[in-house]
Amino acid sequence: MKVLVINSGSSSIKYQLFQMPEEQVVCAGLIERIGLETGAIHYHSDNVSIKDEQGVENHRVGLEKVVNLLLDEKNGVIKSTDEIEIVGHRVVHGGRFFKQTTEVSNEVKTAIDQLFSLAPQHNPANLEGIKVAETIFTKAKQVAVFDTAFHQTIPAKAYTYAIPTKFLNNNDIRMYGFHGTSHKYVSEKANEYLGKQNTKLITIHLGNGCSITAVENGKSIDHSLGFGPVTGLVMGTRCGDIDHTLIFYLVNNLGYDIDEVNALLQKESGMLGLTGFSDLRDIEAEAAKGNKTCMLALDINAYRVKKYIGSYIAAMNGVDAIVFTAGIGENSFLIREKVCSNLSFMGIELDTEKNNIRAKSLKEIHTENSKVKVLVIPTNEELEIAKQSFYLI
Amino acid sequence: MKVLVINSGSSSIKYQLFQMPEEQVVCAGLIERIGLETGAIHYHSDNVSIKDEQGVENHRVGLEKVVNLLLDEKNGVIKSTDEIEIVGHRVVHGGRFFKQTTEVSNEVKTAIDQLFSLAPQHNPANLEGIKVAETIFTKAKQVAVFDTAFHQTIPAKAYTYAIPTKFLNNNDIRMYGFHGTSHKYVSEKANEYLGKQNTKLITIHLGNGCSITAVENGKSIDHSLGFGPVTGLVMGTRCGDIDHTLIFYLVNNLGYDIDEVNALLQKESGMLGLTGFSDLRDIEAEAAKGNKTCMLALDINAYRVKKYIGSYIAAMNGVDAIVFTAGIGENSFLIREKVCSNLSFMGIELDTEKNNIRAKSLKEIHTENSKVKVLVIPTNEELEIAKQSFYLI
Repeated sequence: MKVLVINSGSSSIKYQLFQMPEEQVVCAGLIERIGLETGAIHYHSDNVSIKDEQGVENHRVGLEKVVNLLLDEKNGVIKSTDEIEIVGHRVVHGGRFFKQTTEVSNEVKTAIDQLFSLAPQHNPANLEGIKVAETIFTKAKQVAVFDTAFHQTIPAKAYTYAIPTKFLNNNDIRMYGFHGTSHKYVSEKANEYLGKQNTKLITIHLGNGCSITAVENGKSIDHSLGFGPVTGLVMGTRCGDIDHTLIFYLVNNLGYDIDEVNALLQKESGMLGLTGFSDLRDIEAEAAKGNKTCMLALDINAYRVKKYIGSYIAAMNGVDAIVFTAGIGENSFLIREKVCSNLSFMGIELDTEKNNIRAKSLKEIHTENSKVKVLVIPTNEELEIAKQSFYLI
Repeated sequence: MKVLVINSGSSSIKYQLFQMPEEQVVCAGLIERIGLETGAIHYHSDNVSIKDEQGVENHRVGLEKVVNLLLDEKNGVIKSTDEIEIVGHRVVHGGRFFKQTTEVSNEVKTAIDQLFSLAPQHNPANLEGIKVAETIFTKAKQVAVFDTAFHQTIPAKAYTYAIPTKFLNNNDIRMYGFHGTSHKYVSEKANEYLGKQNTKLITIHLGNGCSITAVENGKSIDHSLGFGPVTGLVMGTRCGDIDHTLIFYLVNNLGYDIDEVNALLQKESGMLGLTGFSDLRDIEAEAAKGNKTCMLALDINAYRVKKYIGSYIAAMNGVDAIVFTAGIGENSFLIREKVCSNLSFMGIELDTEKNNIRAKSLKEIHTENSKVKVLVIPTNEELEIAKQSFYLI
């Protein structure tokens, strides 16, 4: 059976077509810069790699062009859109409505719409992707896979902010958490590897966005992103944890507009704000040359992760394995080394030689004596969406 | 030698007169509700306890009335103001200027003034107290003891927020930390008790304000309050750590004014926001009666402390002792028990019987097998100010 996975953003759509249950990628690609003349469509299969650099008017036009590529006599992979029996959609915010992956219905679409205010940059684009896909793949079941769903098991003592309860009760202001698809995927891989389910894991997703999750017995019990996807770890351009009173200071004492501050903390902060570079590879290269600002930024970044590891070990009263994943987690041995250094009190000992890898598959990077396993597990959110959609239907 | 300690707030002045170096309290008291007709002056010595319920116009009038009580033929404790050789003042914010306790000069007063914008609710009142005391105790040396000074040893990787560096370089926006006098006092008491200086301590100040400090080799290396005194632990009416994006949501989606949000997070949040009660004793009493909201609030509170303990153990790669102090820390065995439960992985084991105390002096509350000591140490910020002032001069 063919399952198409769609990750529809505000100006891009990533797609991947899987043969299931074989978990085989049939083709994959990207529509980028939707709405701009510089837009382009990428399409990769076993046989061909295409980049079509014509502007893409909107999500519908983009997805229709992808379908033409899928159907193309020479380079295509299907003969009819009906071959695609399931379309799995990434939806960022499921709020309190969605505790799990769900087949799309009118009620589901209404609920996603109701969550626009909680994820204004994501949910509208996600819903648009669903609506377009429904008209193109008329025979397929549409499935919504929510970034927040995996974190719905987090208990109230962890998701409740210490603000007046009316904001939770009337306005749904609480911690939700994100990157759930990735944390679920790597935590399940880790449990398979450990050969048991009743484990205590800390999964660390370090990509352009970054987050860390405490996973106990397969369930998320705490997490670093919150009401929005900005708190916790230091990210490429997002600040992570700050003292919120600096917002009032920027507005009241330095004359900033509140929306400027919001944009500043999302787009000009994090590693970019600290160093002028948002890509960690550039920062590591600069640090290697002796750039002290970049060296400090790496220390700030890793120190934050280290403290979260400690707090989640306290939360679970132990840990069996720590899992690094996503672009930085899979590739930066420097960040992994800084994070895991001097954690012997908690039974964590990194093997610096084993750590000296860019992992393409699951790797152990702890010493023989380490009580806690340290693993690098490449994430695969698209495959996780395909699996969840396939096994739901 | 007599040392007068003054803690001058916006509408109150606490004072305590010490005989030094004997560390003996000669008298103590409080001027409350300055500026209101309901104002009052309290004065307590070995012989007498007075409450004078006349309104107090301003800080000067209040302090002059206290002086009259000190000099009173029948109930007084000094014959002349000249007997007071040192006046030690609590100053909340020393910014980056003050790394230690400092004798007051014109430059010092100017610097305290320059920090008004960082501590608008505290520094103006602190400076007013200094100015009034200078004109009353003309022969005394005036000394400023800063809440922030103890935390000036915190390294850049911990005090730097991941926002554009210009805000640190040009506007001094960074973590400062507060309650330093209390954390210094109890950490030194703990080191005396442990009989060594090269220790790893976690000191937990739980009062109306709450904070937690990692103290390594006698130096603060990390702390939960930040740029302002609002982040970290859940406090009586202050929120502690939140997702700052809820501020933007309250303003942009729920129509709040930004100053309303600031006030809300400082005065209507924390335990008050969660339960309707700001006094932990009321909340514990309600929880004992089965009030689930109060039970959850206690869990939220203790879980936050527990996670900070874990993060600071990670930061120091170990801990020798955990120290509870201040009103709640000294008296609430329930909070201490919730905080320390299920931390055996980190070598922390509370003895529930030993814990069943309201501590008036240093007490051990861990089991015999606990690798980490758990101590309750009553704080004494006034004595610490007196000591620092006395030994400076």
